[in-house]
Amino acid sequence: MPGFVSIREVGPRDGLQNEEPIPTEAKVRLLDALSRTGVGRIEAVSFVHPKAIPQMADADEVWRRAEQTEGVRYSALVPNTRGAHRALAAGFTEIEVVVSASDTHNRRNVNRSTEESLDDIAELVELLHHAGARAEVIIATSFGCPYEGDIDPVRVAGIVDRVVRDGADRVAFGDTTGMATPRRVRELVTAVRDRDAHLPLLLHFHNTRGAALANLLTAIELGVTEFDASVGGLGGCPYAPGASGNLATEEAVHLLHDMGVDTGIDLAALIEVAELAEELVGRSLPSGVLRAGPRTRLTALPG
Amino acid sequence: MPGFVSIREVGPRDGLQNEEPIPTEAKVRLLDALSRTGVGRIEAVSFVHPKAIPQMADADEVWRRAEQTEGVRYSALVPNTRGAHRALAAGFTEIEVVVSASDTHNRRNVNRSTEESLDDIAELVELLHHAGARAEVIIATSFGCPYEGDIDPVRVAGIVDRVVRDGADRVAFGDTTGMATPRRVRELVTAVRDRDAHLPLLLHFHNTRGAALANLLTAIELGVTEFDASVGGLGGCPYAPGASGNLATEEAVHLLHDMGVDTGIDLAALIEVAELAEELVGRSLPSGVLRAGPRTRLTALPG
Repeated sequence: MPGFVSIREVGPRDGLQNEEPIPTEAKVRLLDALSRTGVGRIEAVSFVHPKAIPQMADADEVWRRAEQTEGVRYSALVPNTRGAHRALAAGFTEIEVVVSASDTHNRRNVNRSTEESLDDIAELVELLHHAGARAEVIIATSFGCPYEGDIDPVRVAGIVDRVVRDGADRVAFGDTTGMATPRRVRELVTAVRDRDAHLPLLLHFHNTRGAALANLLTAIELGVTEFDASVGGLGGCPYAPGASGNLATEEAVHLLHDMGVDTGIDLAALIEVAELAEELVGRSLPSGVLRAGPRTRLTALPG
Repeated sequence: MPGFVSIREVGPRDGLQNEEPIPTEAKVRLLDALSRTGVGRIEAVSFVHPKAIPQMADADEVWRRAEQTEGVRYSALVPNTRGAHRALAAGFTEIEVVVSASDTHNRRNVNRSTEESLDDIAELVELLHHAGARAEVIIATSFGCPYEGDIDPVRVAGIVDRVVRDGADRVAFGDTTGMATPRRVRELVTAVRDRDAHLPLLLHFHNTRGAALANLLTAIELGVTEFDASVGGLGGCPYAPGASGNLATEEAVHLLHDMGVDTGIDLAALIEVAELAEELVGRSLPSGVLRAGPRTRLTALPG
């Protein structure tokens, strides 16, 4: 077991992007509350076209009004050069771009093949480096594609090779529709490590089929120490059809702390933010630890 | 990884006991549908006082009307001598009794200390053996108690010693309020194995805090090959306050099959039964695999 696992909180971006739009003020409140939980990294916003994703139309204003807490690394996701310029102008120095390991999925998303997107990303990485920012490439559908089915881990490892060669500072792996299982996690991590034993990996699980914590446990046993998670499970209830079902940050932290793995996060404070998130989006969020509290929360006996 | 894991389906008893009452006919339909999934064991009913648990008031009739499928082992739960006589008269040869590892929890449930209940169980086991039936002792709150907090695994192992000495044929461990974590599973299984390396263990997890599959994975890695699970997650939505949140059988089977571990269960048939269960109880059940389907179920491209 590692002594420390680094969680990147993605609720403000990946979470809210998949909920009904909420006011700018509410987004700022969520971000600020998360910044005070002890979490080390937050995916704050994305700079996407407001017509494509109205939930992020106010990204500039959200980021301007949010407190930037020392010790927290904030990142933004961008889809293209225009978004990259916006993110850089807003002051971000950690920027994420996405490509799908599944050619079909990538074409459905951006009307380009995976190879074409990788060419675009090579240019984007150069642009970002030129401006002094770091570039992370997120490989979506790394554990399976809803159109194609299984994705050969060797294909994903090949994409990793390519983006690292093109200068990517970091690589993340998205379980876009919750197709990861302990077996698939083991196969992918092994395939990537076979090529580059020291590349830091960040895994992003969805709880669509209930396996998110089993996947996280498997990854930790393989030495992975970086994960995305979304406060309250923001970003689509796994029990609603077609929803993404992000792993709830407090479920991950609860499990990790019980195993003696530190995250730097104050779990009680995080659960309070999950309560706030639920209030802000106005629906019940799918996090069990939010509902039931941590296992250390005892029930008082009557009398 | 084991080649085979034995699942005991507990939806008809533990599941329905924690839902609003449904008609006898519906219970029989659920039981019969489960008997055709390939599952090897089903907890069919409990013989409890109808005033205490109205959901099981028609246990005799349900069992009389249900198909008893060859190759399926059916069991019943009983709280006391009177229940044992009813179960034996109904023809059951596998009978479960419960005691709580937590003294406080046991007193709250049956107004007896754990020790006093163990004395009762010793007599019950004798009665059952005398009638030619096998007796399983389920140790509730094995992974933690909502009143007392952590339960020392050595205390649980001591209870195992006692019930085995008193003739119990099998021992099961209940995660009554979802306090199990991979760490707690490891500690408990190790403590029990330290006393008796060959005792078969059956684990019963709740998904209250999202960790049920992570716990199952940990247990399998420790060589445990028997688990309870409840179709659809019947028995209390983990997202409703105070609910139990049984591990959904299809989530367990989905994970196991993907790892190459056989269960004898036809997953597609099981998911159909989960759909039926949802219809019978008239509410949305918390199973992700029921909602999303297995990872192998692909989305068709338009056009």
